[in-house]
Amino acid sequence: MNLLLIEPEELEDGSRRVRVGGRRRRHAEQILRAGPGASLRVGVVGGRIGTARVMALDAETLDLEVRLERDPPPKLAFQLVLALPRPPVFRRLLSTVSSLGIERLLVVGTARTEKSFWQSRVVEPGAIRERLLLGLEQAGDTILPEVELHRYFEPLVKDVLPACLVGRRGLLAHPGAGRPCPHGVADPVTCFVGPEGGLLDHEIEKLVGAGFLPVDLGERVLRVEPVIPMLVGRLAS
Amino acid sequence: MNLLLIEPEELEDGSRRVRVGGRRRRHAEQILRAGPGASLRVGVVGGRIGTARVMALDAETLDLEVRLERDPPPKLAFQLVLALPRPPVFRRLLSTVSSLGIERLLVVGTARTEKSFWQSRVVEPGAIRERLLLGLEQAGDTILPEVELHRYFEPLVKDVLPACLVGRRGLLAHPGAGRPCPHGVADPVTCFVGPEGGLLDHEIEKLVGAGFLPVDLGERVLRVEPVIPMLVGRLAS
Repeated sequence: MNLLLIEPEELEDGSRRVRVGGRRRRHAEQILRAGPGASLRVGVVGGRIGTARVMALDAETLDLEVRLERDPPPKLAFQLVLALPRPPVFRRLLSTVSSLGIERLLVVGTARTEKSFWQSRVVEPGAIRERLLLGLEQAGDTILPEVELHRYFEPLVKDVLPACLVGRRGLLAHPGAGRPCPHGVADPVTCFVGPEGGLLDHEIEKLVGAGFLPVDLGERVLRVEPVIPMLVGRLAS
Repeated sequence: MNLLLIEPEELEDGSRRVRVGGRRRRHAEQILRAGPGASLRVGVVGGRIGTARVMALDAETLDLEVRLERDPPPKLAFQLVLALPRPPVFRRLLSTVSSLGIERLLVVGTARTEKSFWQSRVVEPGAIRERLLLGLEQAGDTILPEVELHRYFEPLVKDVLPACLVGRRGLLAHPGAGRPCPHGVADPVTCFVGPEGGLLDHEIEKLVGAGFLPVDLGERVLRVEPVIPMLVGRLAS
């Protein structure tokens, strides 16, 4: 936790005082070893970043006086369209996605996406938000990426993806594409990353028809977890 | 498992027949649904890649006839010097490192590397090899990266790192360096990635003195797991 995040409603109107408990209090006490008078990095979810002075700390609560001084880092002009992976992978990836600064995540179903994954608790809005917040705390950001779930591939391609490519470069990460992924792209990017086991040929055709250019990251077949940061590291200018 | 790996000693001299059991047999049966006559992608650890025909499959063993036709993908000209992270992170990273094609990994101690990490079973040679093999199976490679453990920072910098920079570009991933990590570097690269919590100033000075250029990956503070593939994606040409 490099940034202690405060929900806007926790900050009383016009006040700079906030009281937090639970995980955040424990982290401040046990990991940051913050006693009264100490200074912590804080941010308001969806808002600004600054410092907080510890006014009091007891077994239940942590009282802070907050000073918000600057804006969070800008989001990357990077949208990710991701075939829903196995639930434990998805859980970890959500934090990675928000820590990287990806601005929008569309989680989608494909022919090889196991239907049972959609029944998992990891796709519930509250569970998603919790994992995204962990990534923001890590990265020192306050702005949640937009997350949308699109279970069915056909309406996604027809109704949703065209708008995702207006004024943006569409890239489909596809092992064996035979065209290396570009470096340091100046335009905003929308990247499609398929499921373990790959997309079907007719899915690839539809995505190419919608404007996605297939590119690869070399000869190796990689798991989705390293592929996301690889793409971001490569494409970000 | 995109490649079933066979140890050289499992392949009898001059023979193309091999018998495997355990995890590999189960995977072939349960995940790949390979029955007699089926064809599997195989590779010999440290050697070539090809296909194998399933000759027999029972509850204990899988008999294969192997045909090795081509070389594994080339390694990246990328060496990683990594401060030993928490054991569960290190375990996962080993597979990631080998799947990415990193040619050599130096695992090192720094002032902020917890000493207890070196007592973990994850740094035992057998445990390391097992995790590296999983990454090779994933990526379709057979060549294990070289892995060395260097517990003490001073002798590492003095005796080991200079040779790692001969004919190579040395980069130190350092949040706040103020100089963005370059893209698509043609030279071989040696990248130093410090511990959670960062390097101390005098450690940074020593690394700069040894020839490492501090670079950053943007304003965000990232966990080591996404940093490794980010660096590879960005630096690989």
